[in-house]
Amino acid sequence: MKETDEFTHEERRGVYRAIYERRDVRSHFLPEPIPDHVLNRVLDAAHHAPSVGFMQPWDFIVVRDAAVRSAVYENFECARRQAAELYQGEQRKLYDGLKLAGIADAPVNICVTCDQNRAKGNGLGRQTDPSVALYSTVCAVQNLWLAARAESLGVGWVSILDFDRLKVTLGIPAELTLVAYLCIGYVSEFRQKPDLEEKGWETRGSLESVTHFDKW
Amino acid sequence: MKETDEFTHEERRGVYRAIYERRDVRSHFLPEPIPDHVLNRVLDAAHHAPSVGFMQPWDFIVVRDAAVRSAVYENFECARRQAAELYQGEQRKLYDGLKLAGIADAPVNICVTCDQNRAKGNGLGRQTDPSVALYSTVCAVQNLWLAARAESLGVGWVSILDFDRLKVTLGIPAELTLVAYLCIGYVSEFRQKPDLEEKGWETRGSLESVTHFDKW
Repeated sequence: MKETDEFTHEERRGVYRAIYERRDVRSHFLPEPIPDHVLNRVLDAAHHAPSVGFMQPWDFIVVRDAAVRSAVYENFECARRQAAELYQGEQRKLYDGLKLAGIADAPVNICVTCDQNRAKGNGLGRQTDPSVALYSTVCAVQNLWLAARAESLGVGWVSILDFDRLKVTLGIPAELTLVAYLCIGYVSEFRQKPDLEEKGWETRGSLESVTHFDKW
Repeated sequence: MKETDEFTHEERRGVYRAIYERRDVRSHFLPEPIPDHVLNRVLDAAHHAPSVGFMQPWDFIVVRDAAVRSAVYENFECARRQAAELYQGEQRKLYDGLKLAGIADAPVNICVTCDQNRAKGNGLGRQTDPSVALYSTVCAVQNLWLAARAESLGVGWVSILDFDRLKVTLGIPAELTLVAYLCIGYVSEFRQKPDLEEKGWETRGSLESVTHFDKW
C-alpha cells in the first residue's frame, strides 16, 4: 500500500466523528439556504456509493419548492396519524410528543429512488438477491448523510409517508422504487444522543449482544 | 450550533477521502490478521448506523475459521458459475476474467443479518414501508465500509451466493434476512478506480444525469 493511501490521525477522526455525531434531525433545522456547491458535494458523495455491478441505480430529486414540500407534509401528517392508532396509553402520549419530520422546516428535501431494472452493470451480482440494487441506493443515502454531517448539515430520513401518493406528487415513474425521503439543512444544534434515545422511546443495545463468532 | 460541532478542514477531508477512496476489494487482500481493537472499531461504527425507530435490527457474524470460509467459498463458486450462463461472447470472457470475491484471501469475513421483527423500536416508522429495517442494516454496512477505509482496511461485498445455503452454513435462524456477506482485511493497494470500471465492465454516469429538481 502506498503511504499516501493511509489516513492521517485527524482524517480518521473525521470519519469516526461523522459516524458518531450523525443524527436523524427533525427539530433543529434553520431556514438558511444550502449553497449550491455544498449541496453538490453531498450529492456527489452519494453518487460515489458502492453499487452492485457498478449499476448506479439511484436518482435524486432535490425539492426546494414550498408548494411541493407542503403537499409532502400533508401526506406525512396523514400517515403519521394513521400510524398513531397502533400505540396506546403512555406510549401513545410519547408518540404524539415526538417530532418525526422536518419536511417544512428544512430548506431542502431530497427524494432518493432506485431503478431496479437499470441496464447499467449488465445484471452482474443481481441474480442471487435482487434486493442488492435497493441496498446500493441505501449506501448512497448513508454517504450523503455522513458527508452532510461533515458540512454541518443535518439530515432526517422520513419513512412515515404514503409512497404511492408521494410518487404521484413528485412525478416519479411507476416502475421505480422510492427508497428514501430526506430533509436536509443547517441546524441550531446536533444533539449528543439520538432523539428517540433522549425521549425514552428506545435504548441502545450493546455491540456484544449483536456480535457472533464463526457461527450464529 | 456549537463551534466544536464543526469539522476541521482535515476532518472533513477525511470523510470525503473515505467516500471517494473506498473500493469494493476482491483482489488485493493481505493475510495479516486484523487486531481485535481495530475490528471492534469498525464493528462499533456499523453499530452506530441510523435505524428506523432506533430499532438496531442488525447482527454481525465475524467469520475467521478457515473451514467455514472454505464452505462459503464453495457456495460462491457454485453461484458464480451459474450466473456466468447469462453472459455470452466478449462479455462472457470479461465476466470469467473478473475476480469477484476475496472470501478465502481476506483474513476476516463478516456476515450481516437483519431481524425484521425485532421488538426494539416498537414498530416506529415501519408501517408504511417495512423495507426500512433492511435499509437500516445496509446503513450499518456502509458505516463499516467507510470506517474500514479510514483504518486502511479493504472491504468487498459478495452478493453472488446462495443465501439459503449460507444461512445453514452459518447457523442463522430461518426468520432472519441475510443482507450482506463482506470480506475484510489489509490490502496491497487501493486502486484509483472501481475494478469494474477499470476492466471495462461499466462506466460511471454523470451526477447531472441522475439529479432532478422539484419534480422528476
